[in-house]
Amino acid sequence: MHLLSISALSDDAIAALLARAREFAADREAGRGRLAGRTVFNCFYENSTRTAMSFAQAAARLGAQAITLSVEHSSVKKGETLADTARTLGAMGPDALVLRHRQNGAAEEVAALVDCPVINAGDGTNEHPTQALLDALTLTQHFGDLHGRKIAIIGDIRHSRVARSNAALLPRLGAEVRLAGPPSLIPEDVTALSIDEAIAGADAVMMLRVQRERMDEDLGDAPGEYLTHYGLTAERLALAAPDAVVLHPGPMNRGVEISDEVADLPARSLILRQVANGVATRMAVLEMLVAGL
Amino acid sequence: MHLLSISALSDDAIAALLARAREFAADREAGRGRLAGRTVFNCFYENSTRTAMSFAQAAARLGAQAITLSVEHSSVKKGETLADTARTLGAMGPDALVLRHRQNGAAEEVAALVDCPVINAGDGTNEHPTQALLDALTLTQHFGDLHGRKIAIIGDIRHSRVARSNAALLPRLGAEVRLAGPPSLIPEDVTALSIDEAIAGADAVMMLRVQRERMDEDLGDAPGEYLTHYGLTAERLALAAPDAVVLHPGPMNRGVEISDEVADLPARSLILRQVANGVATRMAVLEMLVAGL
Amino acid sequence: MHLLSISALSDDAIAALLARAREFAADREAGRGRLAGRTVFNCFYENSTRTAMSFAQAAARLGAQAITLSVEHSSVKKGETLADTARTLGAMGPDALVLRHRQNGAAEEVAALVDCPVINAGDGTNEHPTQALLDALTLTQHFGDLHGRKIAIIGDIRHSRVARSNAALLPRLGAEVRLAGPPSLIPEDVTALSIDEAIAGADAVMMLRVQRERMDEDLGDAPGEYLTHYGLTAERLALAAPDAVVLHPGPMNRGVEISDEVADLPARSLILRQVANGVATRMAVLEMLVAGL
Repeated sequence: MHLLSISALSDDAIAALLARAREFAADREAGRGRLAGRTVFNCFYENSTRTAMSFAQAAARLGAQAITLSVEHSSVKKGETLADTARTLGAMGPDALVLRHRQNGAAEEVAALVDCPVINAGDGTNEHPTQALLDALTLTQHFGDLHGRKIAIIGDIRHSRVARSNAALLPRLGAEVRLAGPPSLIPEDVTALSIDEAIAGADAVMMLRVQRERMDEDLGDAPGEYLTHYGLTAERLALAAPDAVVLHPGPMNRGVEISDEVADLPARSLILRQVANGVATRMAVLEMLVAGL
Repeated sequence: MHLLSISALSDDAIAALLARAREFAADREAGRGRLAGRTVFNCFYENSTRTAMSFAQAAARLGAQAITLSVEHSSVKKGETLADTARTLGAMGPDALVLRHRQNGAAEEVAALVDCPVINAGDGTNEHPTQALLDALTLTQHFGDLHGRKIAIIGDIRHSRVARSNAALLPRLGAEVRLAGPPSLIPEDVTALSIDEAIAGADAVMMLRVQRERMDEDLGDAPGEYLTHYGLTAERLALAAPDAVVLHPGPMNRGVEISDEVADLPARSLILRQVANGVATRMAVLEMLVAGL
Repeated sequence: MHLLSISALSDDAIAALLARAREFAADREAGRGRLAGRTVFNCFYENSTRTAMSFAQAAARLGAQAITLSVEHSSVKKGETLADTARTLGAMGPDALVLRHRQNGAAEEVAALVDCPVINAGDGTNEHPTQALLDALTLTQHFGDLHGRKIAIIGDIRHSRVARSNAALLPRLGAEVRLAGPPSLIPEDVTALSIDEAIAGADAVMMLRVQRERMDEDLGDAPGEYLTHYGLTAERLALAAPDAVVLHPGPMNRGVEISDEVADLPARSLILRQVANGVATRMAVLEMLVAGL
C-alpha cells in the first residue's frame, strides 16, 4: 500500500489517518518504539529541508531510522534513470520510501518498481498528499467539523501541488474551497475568483508560497507589487470572517505573499500548528503503511 | 580486526561471512537489535550514495546508527591530513569506521591510527572487499558451488577495485576468472583476452562501470562505440553459456557498457540481487567486526 | 533550560556536568539507552563536520537520534529569517536543538522562540560553551585540581569563541588564564602579553586555530611567518613548565599555529583526549537538558 495521491485514499483511510494523527499531536509518548528497527528512505530530488526533517522526525518518534538521500548532492545525479535508482533503493529493503521529485507522476512510477510502501512527498505540480492531510488536521482541530467552512487558497494555483491536494481533500470533508491568484497562474479549468472575492467571508485563508523557481512565466512584478495585488495584508484579511485563521505551507516569503503584520498575528495564524501537525500526520502515515494499521 | 582487503581474510572468515550474509538475505528479522546502541562512522571521501546508503541500511537493520560524513560537502576538505582526520574520528569512539577514499591504501593507513574496526569501502584502484563478498554471495546463491564456473569480468580492469577484489576472491572459491577490456585499460601483468574470448562459454558475465572520472587516458570513443566494441549486447551475451547470468556493480551506464536490452533481462540479470546482497553482506561484516562473531 | 554561555551556568551545574562527563569518558556503557526515542536537531549554519559528528555521536551513545541540518546545502538559505526557521524547527518537537551560527547571540535568540532546550555549539565570536567544558574536563583529568595552574591561550583572541568561553570558565575552576596573540587580534580590553611571556612557566598551552575566513584584517604574513612569530614550536614550548601539555580545539593547521614536531608529541599533546572528551561532555549536557538530571 502506498500514499501517492488524495484521490487514491478512501474516506475511511482519511478518517483513520486524521484520528491517529490527532493522537500523535496530543501525546508525545504515543507510538514510541512502534516502528523500532525499521528504516525509512527519505529520497529528496528537490531540496526541501523542512519536509525532509519532518519525515525524519516522524520516523524517529516511532523508533525508526530515516536514511536521507539528498540527490542535489549525490552521485545519483550522474545520469542514472529514476527507474534504475528506484529499483536499486528498493532492493536495499527499506520499510518505506519517501520521494520528492520535480516530475509529475514520479512517486507512482517508483511505487510500481519497488516492494515497499512509497509516500509521495511532492511530485512536480501534481500532488503533496501529506501536506493536505496535515492541513485538514489543522483545520479540523480548530473548527471541529468542516462542513460549510469556506477555505480560500490563494496564490500560484497552476504550479501548486499543495493547492491541488487540498482542493481534492477539503471538499470531501465538507469544506467549500475557493481558489484565487494572479490570472496567469490560474489553470484554464479552474473558475477564477478575484483575491478579494475568495477571501470575502472565508473562515480560513491558505496562502501559497511564491515559487519563482517553478514558473516559466515572469511575473514582471516590482518589489512589493505582489503583496499589494495578491498577498495577504491586514486590510485584505479584514474581508474574511471575523475570526478567520491563516495557513501557509512554509517557508513564508515575508513581504511577498504575506505581510509581516499578518505573519506575526499569533491569535490568527495556524502556521506553526501546521508544522507540528506535519510530524504527527507523517507518523500516522508511516505507521499505517509500515505496521499495517 | 579490520576488513581491508580480500587477501587479509582467511578462508574460514570468508566462509563464515558468506554463510551469515546468506541468513541476513533470507530473513529480514535476523540480527535485529544485534548492534543496538552502536554507531558506525560512514566516511565517504568520494561521492557514492548507493554504497553509503547500503552501509547505513546494514547498520540500521542491526539496530546501530550510521553517522555519515560526506567529505565532498564537509569542512574536512580544508587542508587537514587524512591521518589527523582519522585520529580525530577514531577518538570520538565509533564502534566501526567505514572508509571510501580515492587513495590506494587509505583504509590501511586509517586502520593503523584508530582503535575501532575499519572497513574498506573502496580505496582508489586497489580493493573493494565488501563488493567482492556480495558478488560471491550472489554467485553462490545462484550456482551453489562455484568450482569450475567461468566468470568473465569485462571493462576497465586497470582502474577497477571491483575487478581486483573479485579476481582475488572468486578463484579461492573455485571459480575461473577471465578478465577482458579495452587494451589500454588492461594492466601489463594481466593476460589479455578479447571480450569475445572471455565471454565464450562463461557462466557469468560481470560488466564494470565505465568511470571516465578515474581515467587518465581519453578513450577517444564516439557515442555508441564503447558498447559496440566492449559492451554487453544481446549478440555478445549469446556467446556465453546458455543460461549465463549478468552482474554489474552499478550504477549502470545504459548504452555504454551494457545495452538496454541486456540490462532489462530479468531472467538473466542478478543486478538487483547484488544490491540486496550488499546490505546482507555488510550486516555480516559489521556484526563480525563489532560484535566479534 | 538551555546551554547558551558559560556565565549562565552555576558552579553546581558546572561541577555536575564535569563529573558526569568524566563517567561517560571512562565507561563506554554509561548512559546507554538513557535518551532512547529522543531526537536532537543538529543545526549547523556554519560548516563544522567534527562538532556536528561529536554531537551526533553523543546523542547516539545515549540512544537518541540526531537529525542533522546542514544549512550550507539546504533550502533554509533561501531567505527565511533565523526566527522563522527556529520557530519551524521548534514546532517539529525535537527534544533538543543544537545550533551553530555565525551571528553572535543566535542561540539566545533561538532559545527564546522554541519550547525545547537549546545548546549553543558556537555563535559568531561570542561563546562555545561545550568546547570550554570539554577543555576543562581534559585539564582536570590531567592535573586534578586546577587551582594555581597557568593556562596560556594563544592566537586570534579577538575572533575566538573558544578563547572567550575558556576565559570565562577556567578561572572559575581556579586556573590562571593568560591570553596572547598577534597584536591586531587582541581586543582592546584584554591585557596583552607577548607569546613568550604567556607561555613562560605555563602548565598548559592551548593553541587556537587560525581562521582566516573569520578575519577582516589581512595578516599579511608570508608562508611560515605566523609559525615563527605566533605558533607553537618546540623552542617556544621549552619555555613552559617542564611537563606542560598542549591543547588545540582542532582542526590543526600544521605549520601555521603549531609545528609538526609539537603536534606529534604524544607525551605532551592532549588533543585527541579533547576530542574524546567532546563526546562525553556533550552526552552530559544532553542528558542534563533533556532528561532533566
